[in-house]
This record gives sequence, C-alpha cells and structure tokens, in this order.
Amino acid sequence: METISFGQYDLIYNAFSFTFATMAAATLFFWFGRSQVADAYKTAMTVTGLVTAIAAYHYFRISQSWVEAHVVADGVVTASKLGFNDAYRYVDWFLTVPLLLVELILVMGLSRQETTSKAVRLGLLAALMVGLGYPGEIADTASGRWLWGGLSMIPFLWIVYELFVGLSRSVEQQPESARGLVKTAIWVTVLSWAFYPVVFFAGAIGLEGSTATTVVQVGYTIADIIAKAAFGVLIFMIAVRKSEADMGRAKTA
Amino acid sequence: METISFGQYDLIYNAFSFTFATMAAATLFFWFGRSQVADAYKTAMTVTGLVTAIAAYHYFRISQSWVEAHVVADGVVTASKLGFNDAYRYVDWFLTVPLLLVELILVMGLSRQETTSKAVRLGLLAALMVGLGYPGEIADTASGRWLWGGLSMIPFLWIVYELFVGLSRSVEQQPESARGLVKTAIWVTVLSWAFYPVVFFAGAIGLEGSTATTVVQVGYTIADIIAKAAFGVLIFMIAVRKSEADMGRAKTA
Repeated sequence: METISFGQYDLIYNAFSFTFATMAAATLFFWFGRSQVADAYKTAMTVTGLVTAIAAYHYFRISQSWVEAHVVADGVVTASKLGFNDAYRYVDWFLTVPLLLVELILVMGLSRQETTSKAVRLGLLAALMVGLGYPGEIADTASGRWLWGGLSMIPFLWIVYELFVGLSRSVEQQPESARGLVKTAIWVTVLSWAFYPVVFFAGAIGLEGSTATTVVQVGYTIADIIAKAAFGVLIFMIAVRKSEADMGRAKTA
Repeated sequence: METISFGQYDLIYNAFSFTFATMAAATLFFWFGRSQVADAYKTAMTVTGLVTAIAAYHYFRISQSWVEAHVVADGVVTASKLGFNDAYRYVDWFLTVPLLLVELILVMGLSRQETTSKAVRLGLLAALMVGLGYPGEIADTASGRWLWGGLSMIPFLWIVYELFVGLSRSVEQQPESARGLVKTAIWVTVLSWAFYPVVFFAGAIGLEGSTATTVVQVGYTIADIIAKAAFGVLIFMIAVRKSEADMGRAKTA
C-alpha cells in the first residue's frame, strides 16, 4: 500500500466531511424551496433534493470508509487491513447523474412527450457514461484507464450535443426572466462534468501515489459540489422565476 | 503533547455538548418560524436554520473528536494517538459564514439584482477570510499566526465596510418597525465576528498549552452561539416585523 502523510489524510477526510454537510444542507434547502414554486416545478425540486440527499448518504459512507481504511497513531498514517471503498462514488453517480439531467428537463417544462423521451435518452446516456468509466477507475494500467475513459467520453459528448443542440429550441421558448439562468445551468453541467475526466486522467498522466490520491479525491469532491449543490441552486432559481412568470405577475422588488 | 487537567477537559467537552444542543434547538425554532413569515422572507428563514444545522453537525463531530483524542483514567487526562480534528471549525465557518451574510441580505429584501451581487461579493469575501485564517490556526509559530491572521483581517475589514457603508441606504429603506433590529443585526455581526480574531490571537500573545486550548475552544464556542443562534433570532424578528409591515401596506393600498 502507498503511504500517505497525515496532512493529506486529514485534508481528504475534511473534504469528505465538508461535502457531507454541504449536500445535507443543500437537500433541506431544496425541499423547503419546494413550497415556494408552482406545482409544475415541484417534481423538479423533489429530484434536485434527492440528488444531494443521495450524495450526502454516499459522502457519509465514503468518510467512514476512509477512516476505517487507515490507522492513525501519533500523526503517522498507515493502511488498515480493510481497504477504501472507492466504488461508493460510481454507485452514487450511477444514480445521481441521470437524475441531474432529469432535473434540468423537468424545470424546463417541455411537453409531456418531449419530457419523457429526453429524460429517458439523456438518463440512459448518463448511466452508460458512468458505467463505462468505472472499469477505467479500477484499472491497474494507464492504458486501461485511457481505454475505458475514452469509451466513456462517447456518451459524454453525445450528452453535450443533446444539451446544446437538442435543447436549443426549448431554451429559446423559456420565459425571458429565466432564459439566461437556463443557459447558465447547461454551461455549469457541461463544464463541471468536463472536470471529472480531468481528475480521472490525472491518474493516467504520471501522477502517482498519495499525491494522485489527494488530487483525485479532493478534485471529485469539488466537482460534485458544483455539479449537484450549486447546479441545484440554479434549478431552484429557474423554478422560482418561471413560477412568477406563469402567474403573470412581475415582481415589483 | 500538552497535558490538560480533567477540569479543563470536562469544561471544553461540556461547552461542545451545550453548543450542539443550542444549535439543534435553534435550527428547529427557525424552521418552525418559516411558516410565520411572509413568502418573501421564507428563504431567509430556511438559510438561518441551515447555518445552525450545519453548526450542530460540526459540534457533534467536534465533541466526538475531542473524546477520541483523549484517554481519561481516574481523573487524569492524557492524549490518545488519534489527535483532535480542529479543522471541523474551519470547515464549518467556510460554509456558514458566507451563509450568515446571505441571511442578512435576504431578510433586507433588496432588489433581485442587488441581492445577487451583494450575496456573491460578501459571500466570497467571507470564504476568503476563513480560508486565510486556517493556515494561521495550524501554524507552529506565533509569526505564522500573525501573518495569516493579519491577511484574514483584510477581507474582514472589507466586509465591515460593506455592512456599514454599502448597506446604509438599504437600512434606511427598511420599515420603521424593523430598522432598529436590522442595525442591531449588523452590529451583532461585526462585534461577534471581531471576537474570533481576539480568540485567534490569544494563541500568539503568550498564552500557551492547556490554558490557551481552553480559552480558544470555549471562546470560539461562545462566539459561534452569538453569531449564529442569537443572530438568527434577530433575523426571525426582522422577518416577522417586515411581514406585518408588508401586510399593513397591502391593507391600506
């Protein structure tokens, strides 16, 4: 087993704990916000909170697994016999990444038929993207990481195309007060998701041992906070503005 | 490792436990209060409760870490091999201090544009202030503590300027029944936040060992209760009075 410094161990633990607290707080924020939006957007807020709730659960488990995988004695960290369960991340993404696209589609308020077809297509692509990434994450060789990571990029690029081209007409049909935010939400999705392969390939370009572990763990954590909690705040703001636009009353404030 | 007396160990543990109970109770109070204020202030109450909820989580963890970091036998306290995770505080502040400023801005009911720009600017300054303080907190030397603490004072003073000068026009536009409370809330923010550097620098002016530990831990705990729970009660009172003022205006109109 690689050795890791106490500072690195501690930084990673605190990043996990921070993310648990952020995701749990975000969940409550979204579910409270549910009562502040029109009926048409309540399901979007439910799903937005589910994504962060699922992430909070996994970050709680990840931080537990991190502690159990190490023995700390007088500032020296050694590996325990248990090993760290990195698969929690992929299990989380397999559930939450399709749901993130569903949030976006739900808050856009497309026709019922379009909602179903786009949610199914984008959801399956997202699940495929995560599923193809996992064999690369656990691959022993850099070539394995490049192969599966490369395959995983195909559904990713397809999703990017669907978001920018497939949804462009629907974006233009959003009420003016929400249109800019919807565009921002699409950009946040693409840019924050593009951050995952950067972290993923950090393990394939020569970064090794405890430095790679720290970059990968802290990097994924930051990406998760942006892609789930910050993205969710945008979804809430879109839902509030569209609720106001639907009610036909311009807010005076 | 420094030695600590049983009395000091016990005082610190009980201060943590007290603060957990206070924060958890405050959270429930704020979230119940959410239904008693007008729609415009519901998000402010949600965020006010999130701040104390996040603090409750961290005080629970802090008290656990405190117990695990010590071995108590027949009234004699020695350090365990695990060490005390002081970073929980900074992780907490990194999340909650920006949110405290967001609460204040939300309850003031500024225009949408002003709310966003002020929340973003003050939130980033607060995160920078906390981020610069942490290297000082873990510094081994007094000079390191002075350096990072000093740098951290720059965003702090900027925040103070924004609160007193940048918000002064908005304060004057508050309904008369709430104006005094808003001014009090700003003063409570500045004075309770000013208490943190006092505690912080206690470690740099000659206080050492277990006395410094006790002053720092109990000091931060008192500051947290004032800055989060007592401040939150002020936010609730402002929201109630402004809700009444808004309804009064609606009746006369």
